[in-house]
Formats: sequence, C-alpha cells, structure tokens
Amino acid sequence: MSIDRVELLTIGTELLLGFTLDSNSAFLGRTLSAEGVAVVRRTSVGDSPDAIRAAVDEALTRTGFVITTGGLGPTRDDISKNVVAELLGMPLQFNDTVWEAVLARYRRVGRTPVESNRSQAMVPSGGIALPNQWGTAPGLWLESPRGTVVMLPGVPLEMRMLAEHEVVPRLRTQAVASVIRSATLRTCGIPESTLAERVADLEDALAPLSLAYLPSTEGVDLRLTAWNVAAGDADTMLGDGIRRLRDRAGEWAYGEDNVDLAAIVLQRLRESNRTLAVAESCTGGMLGARVTGVPGASDVFLGGMIAYSNRAKAAIDVSPELIQAHGAVSSEVAEAMAAGVARGSGAEVTVAITGIAGPGGGSEEKPVGTVWFATSLDGIVESHKSVFGGTRHEIRERAVQAALLALWRGLRTRR
Amino acid sequence: MSIDRVELLTIGTELLLGFTLDSNSAFLGRTLSAEGVAVVRRTSVGDSPDAIRAAVDEALTRTGFVITTGGLGPTRDDISKNVVAELLGMPLQFNDTVWEAVLARYRRVGRTPVESNRSQAMVPSGGIALPNQWGTAPGLWLESPRGTVVMLPGVPLEMRMLAEHEVVPRLRTQAVASVIRSATLRTCGIPESTLAERVADLEDALAPLSLAYLPSTEGVDLRLTAWNVAAGDADTMLGDGIRRLRDRAGEWAYGEDNVDLAAIVLQRLRESNRTLAVAESCTGGMLGARVTGVPGASDVFLGGMIAYSNRAKAAIDVSPELIQAHGAVSSEVAEAMAAGVARGSGAEVTVAITGIAGPGGGSEEKPVGTVWFATSLDGIVESHKSVFGGTRHEIRERAVQAALLALWRGLRTRR
Repeated sequence: MSIDRVELLTIGTELLLGFTLDSNSAFLGRTLSAEGVAVVRRTSVGDSPDAIRAAVDEALTRTGFVITTGGLGPTRDDISKNVVAELLGMPLQFNDTVWEAVLARYRRVGRTPVESNRSQAMVPSGGIALPNQWGTAPGLWLESPRGTVVMLPGVPLEMRMLAEHEVVPRLRTQAVASVIRSATLRTCGIPESTLAERVADLEDALAPLSLAYLPSTEGVDLRLTAWNVAAGDADTMLGDGIRRLRDRAGEWAYGEDNVDLAAIVLQRLRESNRTLAVAESCTGGMLGARVTGVPGASDVFLGGMIAYSNRAKAAIDVSPELIQAHGAVSSEVAEAMAAGVARGSGAEVTVAITGIAGPGGGSEEKPVGTVWFATSLDGIVESHKSVFGGTRHEIRERAVQAALLALWRGLRTRR
Repeated sequence: MSIDRVELLTIGTELLLGFTLDSNSAFLGRTLSAEGVAVVRRTSVGDSPDAIRAAVDEALTRTGFVITTGGLGPTRDDISKNVVAELLGMPLQFNDTVWEAVLARYRRVGRTPVESNRSQAMVPSGGIALPNQWGTAPGLWLESPRGTVVMLPGVPLEMRMLAEHEVVPRLRTQAVASVIRSATLRTCGIPESTLAERVADLEDALAPLSLAYLPSTEGVDLRLTAWNVAAGDADTMLGDGIRRLRDRAGEWAYGEDNVDLAAIVLQRLRESNRTLAVAESCTGGMLGARVTGVPGASDVFLGGMIAYSNRAKAAIDVSPELIQAHGAVSSEVAEAMAAGVARGSGAEVTVAITGIAGPGGGSEEKPVGTVWFATSLDGIVESHKSVFGGTRHEIRERAVQAALLALWRGLRTRR
C-alpha cells in the first residue's frame, strides 16, 4: 500500500488552552510534505479518553492513517496509548525488550526508574515499538484492519528524532512518485517591500513554483514551493528558481535554506585563517551565543567581553572619560570596544555592539532601538548606526543579525 | 442559550504544510478560556471546499458552535464563506453597508478596490457582518438551526481585534457565570517522574482542579486549571492548590506563572546589594543573554567573559597549565573561571560554566552533555557537575538554567 495522505492528531489540553504552540504539527507537516505525503487534516484534542478515542476513530474512517503526538509519558495525564490499544483491539502487553531499553536509558543518565515507568514498556499486541534513544517512551507503529496509527511522544526532541529515524524510513519503503518540496533564499539588510519590488515581475515566470515572503528578525526569506511534481524534477525546478531570485536579490542574499549567517561568517574566517572575538553591551552575550550555536565554532571564535556596565567596559580599555564625553551608545565607544577586545584577545576580527534595547533608557536624540556597531578587521576600525523597531527581544535579535551582516560584508572585500 | 463549548477550525494549506505555526488557534484558546468557554477541539484543513465543508459539518454535529479563521480575503484560495453559506442554507447577498465600509477602508489606506473585492461585501442572508476596521474582510456571525458558525479573517491582527471587539462581547451577553483559569508552579532541578511521585496522591484532592506536567529545558512546570468555576472562586481555589503543590515540590519550586529564574536571581542580588558577573565557555554568552533579557538588569549585572578558547580563559587568570593538567571541562577550571572573573570584575557573585555541548568533543570519561559549574559568593568558591541530555542547543539551555539554579540556591542561604 502506498501512503500519500495522513492526518495528524496532537494530544494535550495545553494545546486547546493555547498555552502551547503546536510546533509538533508544524514539524510533521514539513517533514511529511517533503516525502510526498500530504497532511490532509490536523486535529488537537485534550487529555480526555473520550475525545482521543473519537478523534482517532474519525481519522481512521476518513483517511485510514493517523500520526499522533503526546500521551506516551509516565505521568497520569498520559492516556492515549490505552485508548488507542482498546480502539484497535490490540491489548497492551508488557514488553521485556522495551523495558530493558527504558532501564538502559535510565542507567545512562544516572537515574532510577520509578514504578510508573513500567507503563512505558506496555506495547499493544501486534504493534511495533519504535526505539527511542532520546527519551524513555518508545513510539508505536500500529497496523490494524481499521488502518494505521503511529504514536509519537509529545516532547519535541523525541518526536522529531523518532519521526526522522523511524517513521520516515518506513514511509519511504511505501513511497509515492511525486513530492512537495521547498527551497529558500535568505536575505538580510533589505526591507520586505523593496525586495518585493525587485522580485514581483518574476512571480508569473516562476510558475508552477509558488513564492512566499517570510520576514523575521534575521531578514526576509524567499521560499519557493514545488507542489506534487516528480521527485526527479523538483530539485532542478527549485534550483533554477532560486538562481533567478538570487539575481534579483543581489548582494542582499547570503544563503539558502536553513543556513545561518553566523555559520557563513565563521566559514569565511576559517578560510582566511582569521579569528573572531566580540564585545557586547546591550545584547549581553546573544551574539556570542549565536556564534557558538554553530558546532565547531571553537577553531575560529576565541570569545569576548560582555561589557554591560561601564566598569566592565573599562576592562577592555573603554575609559569612563570617553563614555562621559560621548555616551555609552556612540560611535566612539563602539569603536573603542572593538579595538579594545581586539588588543585583549589577539583576534584579527572583532565586532562591538552598544545600544538601547528598551523598554527604558531612550531619549529624543537616542530613541529606544538605537544601536552602534563597530568592526575591527586587521586593525581597521569602522562603525555605523542603526535604529531598530520591535520589542526589547526583537531589537536585540536584530542587532545580533546586523553585527553578523557587518562582519560578512567586511570580510567579503578582504582576502 | 449559554455557550460553554466551542470548536476551532483554522483554514489554510500553509498550516498543513507546517510553514506557519497556528498562533490564531492559540490566541483564541487563551481568550475563550478566560471567558469560561472551553475549546474542546481544534482542527486545521487546507483551502479545499470539500475539506472545509466536512470539517464545519462535523464540528456542528459534535459541538454546535465553531469559530473559523482564514478564507475571508479577496484572493483565489479564499472560499470558506461560500462553502459555509451553502452548508447552513444561508445564500450570499450583496450588502451595501459592508461595501461602503470596504470602500472607506480602501480610501483610508489610499488604494483602489478591484473587482474581486466585491466578494467581501457578500454576506450570508440572516447572518451578521462583524465590522473589521483593521482590514477589509468583515467577520461573520451565522446562527442557524444546525448551530452557530463564527468566521474570522486569517490575518492575525484582524483576527485578534475582531475576537476582542466583536466576538467576546457577544459571548458575554450569553455569558456563563463560570471561567476557566490556570496557575503554574515552576520547578527546576527535579526530574518529572520524581516530581510526579511526590505529587501523585494530591491529584484527587486537588479536584476539580486539573494538573498537567510541562517539562522543558527550564525544568518542569506544574499547571493547575480550574474548569468552569465561578469567577469569584477561581483565584482562591488556584491559590490554595498552588500552595499544596509548593509544599510537595519543596526546595525545587522557584516561582509561579511566567516568572523567569533569572529575574528571581537578579531581584535577590538587588535586595542584598550584590553585583553579578559571569564566565561562560560552552554556553558562549547564553547566560549573559538570558540575564540581560530581564529589563533593568543593568543595576546588578556587570557583564563577564565569554571564555570560549583557552586563550580567552587566560584573560581571567585560568592558566594553560591548569587546563593541561585537568582539562578545560573540570572542577578546577570552572572554579578558576569563577574566581578569575570575580577578581577582574569586582562582582560579589559570579558563576562559571564549562562543558561539552556536542555534537563532537565527548569521551568515555566526559561524555557530551558533561558540564561543570562554579559559583563564587562573597569569595567562597564551590563547584558541581551535571550531565545533560538533548541536542547541542538543549544542553546549552539546560546548562544556563542550572547555573541560575546554583546562584539561586547559593543566595538563599546568605544574607
């Protein structure tokens, strides 16, 4: 049987109360679409046996294949396994292999299982337990005359790992010929409306690819989607479409798909044998966090100063007199920070950020959102200013991205 | 008729593809719960007339009241109004008042409506158009013998404004005297299953409050929800329930609702006239970012060192010989980092983090996830080790939270 349509059922009263965003559904939607499996409906119900039973029952009748998340953990509100086992007529049995795996997992993290953990080793008879090395509750693949129910844990990491390592490979053995696939061009430093003016007349020419604009604090992504095309054609069509978009976006395009501007900057530094250090005031460590979020950053990134207070700025030779004369948020202080951390760390490349993230601290002359940046590249120090909108968090995220953009541009013109 | 149960239906192929998070559902869930209206199911379908018709039909049969979002705009994929009008037997009629409002809106934003905009003035006969001053498509309130369908635009701002200004007031006129309200106890440092054992026997006693366990990298939250209780009783019941949970969770409970452990630590420092500095290796600035995410952190937080490389560690007096002898991830290096940044910054309180966030760099003796922490409180330096699971990002987030926990505990025992 080839599976080309599924329904998703996410279980948890939290989802109905709106305290939790349903990121599990979104992840599964993206993952399944990429395999050519269309999600035709998404349902969320609370932790109520009746509601779960009704929702699974209806989905099996409509579509015959449902993937659930949530309700497999050891606590009392986790009840969906019992309900589904009963609905499918597959009574729960204690499974020694699964129990051994649960015990091994607890040993690895140095904990002792409690009595309630034994429920995690109960598997509906005739079902397949999907090994979960990222947590204790296994996933379940349950085929019955009514249809197939795949049950995944609700913890996002475990759900994602089981989907990738256990569900997708099983779906591929029953694969379909057409796929839904997307590709993204990432831009930064150009407003959405300006980008749209550059790109607008291309939209018809891109058909049957559809184009979406996705603005965020990292810039504006352009996403192309190919709907139900032959697997062999999708990549060629998308590659061609991305090339045409890249021509239009020009110098503002920095990469494709999920690439992180921080990773691009690190790679450029690596290729040119330079090291990086940072000096952060209003971002308080967010730039360092972003850079070190890239695995393997340590060969290029030395570290830096979180120079939040004036006292901490003095440690990288930013004198109280300079701050007194120009204010902590000024080109002079930004340049002194970049130069100071370059001297202290020995890094060939540094970047400094000092600004007003709000909500307080703004003035007529320097409103909330004002941020000064300085880079030091091989001893040459330059600075520039931006004024960002948004919340405190958004202003800080935009400042981090702008600092990376300044590094990327600066490095592009150097050998 | 008093309305106490509704279903939500969000319409849009983007939702099924997973490119868009369903924040509309989450907003409506929170808003309706606060009014005592329970969302009993949430469904998403694509922009297909058949799928929309089936989903509305089923929701009316099950629950008799459904609120939809999406499918009211002028573009081609907006078809839900036609489908619902047909399903309810309320044929569409051109409405002059609505058309005037659409025209006025276009004049205000300086645009000219096109022919397809006329469809926005079509209202199902017998239905009420909900004026939308934040966009052009009005909402619809459609009562029929089958039940009630409320249709809202998919654009989040318009949806929220119509919900607040048009839907909630109408629900209140048919109000139930009861509300749904939640309160949360935040814990950190205790595994979910251990917490569950401590709390399990309380669950019955807490009724009619329901209890949910919400694990994340910040710990495990315990959320109590009062369902359909009198508005005057909810706060008392929840306050009492949280107190009982707090007794069980003991030293592991650090706060309530949305409070951030970083804000609690900052407040304690403020009260005791101490300042804070940090030294971060594997977290690369994430702890500083977290602390400075709290508005007003600057009166307590001085800054710190991102001591990612050995060279950067030397800047806070962590000698290459010490690293050579014990490894960068060791109690000795963590303690030297905490002491070094205390001397350099003059802060009374410091915390240092050094660990292996992965995916590479682990060994038999020090697997990925191994993190050493050291605190320096008024000159007294202490260290401890944890081994975390998860991705690189999750390990780093857990390490940040554990560092804050170490500070919180350390400060609790000091005047």
